Amino acid sequence: MSRFLRPAVISMKAYAPGEQIKDAIKLNTNECAWGPSPEVLKAVAGVTPDQLRLYPSPMADRVRAAAADVFQVTADQVLVGNGSDDCLTVIMRSFLEPGDKCACPWPTYSLYDTLATIQGVEIMHCDWLEEEDPLLAAKGITSSGGGVSGHHLPISALLDTGAKVIFIATPNNPSATLVPLEQLDLLASQLEGVLVVDEAYIDYACDAAGQPAGLAMSWIPRLASRDNVIVLRTFSKSYSMAGGRLGLMFASEELIEHMNKVKDSYNVNALTQVAGEAALRDRKHFDWLVRETIRERDWVEAQLVQFGWTWPKTSANFLLAEVGSKELAARLYARLKAEGVLVRYWGSRPDLWTKLRITIGQRSSNEKFVGIVQKALAEDDGAAVKRPRNV
Amino acid sequence: MSRFLRPAVISMKAYAPGEQIKDAIKLNTNECAWGPSPEVLKAVAGVTPDQLRLYPSPMADRVRAAAADVFQVTADQVLVGNGSDDCLTVIMRSFLEPGDKCACPWPTYSLYDTLATIQGVEIMHCDWLEEEDPLLAAKGITSSGGGVSGHHLPISALLDTGAKVIFIATPNNPSATLVPLEQLDLLASQLEGVLVVDEAYIDYACDAAGQPAGLAMSWIPRLASRDNVIVLRTFSKSYSMAGGRLGLMFASEELIEHMNKVKDSYNVNALTQVAGEAALRDRKHFDWLVRETIRERDWVEAQLVQFGWTWPKTSANFLLAEVGSKELAARLYARLKAEGVLVRYWGSRPDLWTKLRITIGQRSSNEKFVGIVQKALAEDDGAAVKRPRNV
Repeated sequence: MSRFLRPAVISMKAYAPGEQIKDAIKLNTNECAWGPSPEVLKAVAGVTPDQLRLYPSPMADRVRAAAADVFQVTADQVLVGNGSDDCLTVIMRSFLEPGDKCACPWPTYSLYDTLATIQGVEIMHCDWLEEEDPLLAAKGITSSGGGVSGHHLPISALLDTGAKVIFIATPNNPSATLVPLEQLDLLASQLEGVLVVDEAYIDYACDAAGQPAGLAMSWIPRLASRDNVIVLRTFSKSYSMAGGRLGLMFASEELIEHMNKVKDSYNVNALTQVAGEAALRDRKHFDWLVRETIRERDWVEAQLVQFGWTWPKTSANFLLAEVGSKELAARLYARLKAEGVLVRYWGSRPDLWTKLRITIGQRSSNEKFVGIVQKALAEDDGAAVKRPRNV
Repeated sequence: MSRFLRPAVISMKAYAPGEQIKDAIKLNTNECAWGPSPEVLKAVAGVTPDQLRLYPSPMADRVRAAAADVFQVTADQVLVGNGSDDCLTVIMRSFLEPGDKCACPWPTYSLYDTLATIQGVEIMHCDWLEEEDPLLAAKGITSSGGGVSGHHLPISALLDTGAKVIFIATPNNPSATLVPLEQLDLLASQLEGVLVVDEAYIDYACDAAGQPAGLAMSWIPRLASRDNVIVLRTFSKSYSMAGGRLGLMFASEELIEHMNKVKDSYNVNALTQVAGEAALRDRKHFDWLVRETIRERDWVEAQLVQFGWTWPKTSANFLLAEVGSKELAARLYARLKAEGVLVRYWGSRPDLWTKLRITIGQRSSNEKFVGIVQKALAEDDGAAVKRPRNV
């Protein structure tokens, strides 16, 4: 019966969710290393039979209200999604007709590609730039910080694609690099279309003093300045609720009202709604999660220096380590997995196959990771010394 | 910025979820009158921090396994959705390209129209037939039961639409009428496309003895007989979990594998997964919910006779009462609402504006509903008697 399926569906490859192996140490899918707020668990345990029996709030009113408080916007500027992936689907279906184009810098979050294929639209990839796009200097714009060599936004190339929608993950995945707000602003100002700023990891971005930057690096406070920008947030990272599936979309009230028609009428279940509200209201636990992650990130970075690895400055709860060769990356990935530690490795992608993406875990997980790598590299050295002798 | 939206999105009207008024007696959105299994609440309360912290099972493996047990299919024949509305969206996106047509009998669940508009496809409406489609007799097929006069499947008309996908709600909403399996079978056999059998309410269908029919009226045991049929189930009715958002889709393993690529990778959150598994495993509570509902349905039907109303034989947890006139329907709806009882009324739809759709509630709710109608009709009679005197 597959003859009735859309050809695009028959030929497409499924999005591959990260590996989940029971009892493994998961440094591969960028979940938070610590659990969600105890208030979240309490709220979930307090759910009444009627909250399950009755349809939930279609717009997740209480989550919306809490998000409006935390992010200093109006509730009507917020759309609550079944994860930010749901928000991405709503964007695809709101703006793109078959034959339209969308675009993103490359490499980035591969789900944008999957969703474009499902929607029957083309997605154009533009490589990140070594240096700032010359268009910035031409316009007399200076970035105030956040830009990372090798990971500058390809503004001109993205504009040249003719895309109606452009997706920018900032901090980016898998590079963990932040895009300066001035670069986003120039792109939005020149774009005849919609700019989607996916801030899944931005709570881990730090200011010059190494402290969590809060909203200072986010587009959300600038929402009113450009009406063609949409911002996404997720609860899967800094709120430690990947299992709960909750995402937020911020845009003008006009765009939110239209996109509401495209989302599923009851897209967020009642359990996740109470969990999400509780997570948003517990600022103390949120701050703790972010600070613990940054503390451990500092520790991991200090350790990795001994291996001679390099990585772009990370503004996320992971980093993308260049380990030197495809063979070494493959060997370390396999060795770590054999010893119960999962990291992200891309064996079939030449642009990434010399790298490993490592999520920041709790100290014991990070120590185990470092220990296994130390041992593996020491054995390699031993083999390298021995091999010439045996020849 | 709405100029960037798809024209279909700008012009579309939002799907209108049922009214939710705090503390009202809700006989308007066909939720279950009693709460979900205590096992469901227990499972939710037992959720661990890690179940929230980590991504959920992408395919909801444990729900799938439980569904396979209950419905006697393989787990690979099941797709778990964020409500059956999510399953409907996956179907729309798997089979229909802009320009394609889908179809349904009319009137029916209006979300099919909304989802077709979002997907950019035409949806054709074919009126239910007074008598069985002559095609059945022409093929020598006799229905074994379930057919309701005025609500027979328009098989020939649906085939003539050229639709690639046909949606049949059975029992139908808002009529509560069941479609005999033989009628579905003939349609599927002649259809060059996919037949979607939406069995949201089928657990309330009874056999000739007035007992819950179990799987006897369902297409699920027939899945292997036709590979172009997809069956939908929801947890919002007979499992009393409308707040949890959980739906199931049954089809051939081949179709499910393709549709899995179209669904959101983590479409069902971890909380709903544990709730759904617990709900499926507690057959005793499920049976109790169904039997209580049928018992109350019998009571409500016995009461409504006094009003001289008629309704098609109901196989659902609601019934569609013909009250005699548009004016009376409007007046009763408003009067009930003013006294805190919500029922479903369609003031702008000529095909339905003489009717009220009444969900079966608990006894106290049903009594309150009946009492308000009794009083309203008695006052009308009084007014009718008085008015001539004053002329």
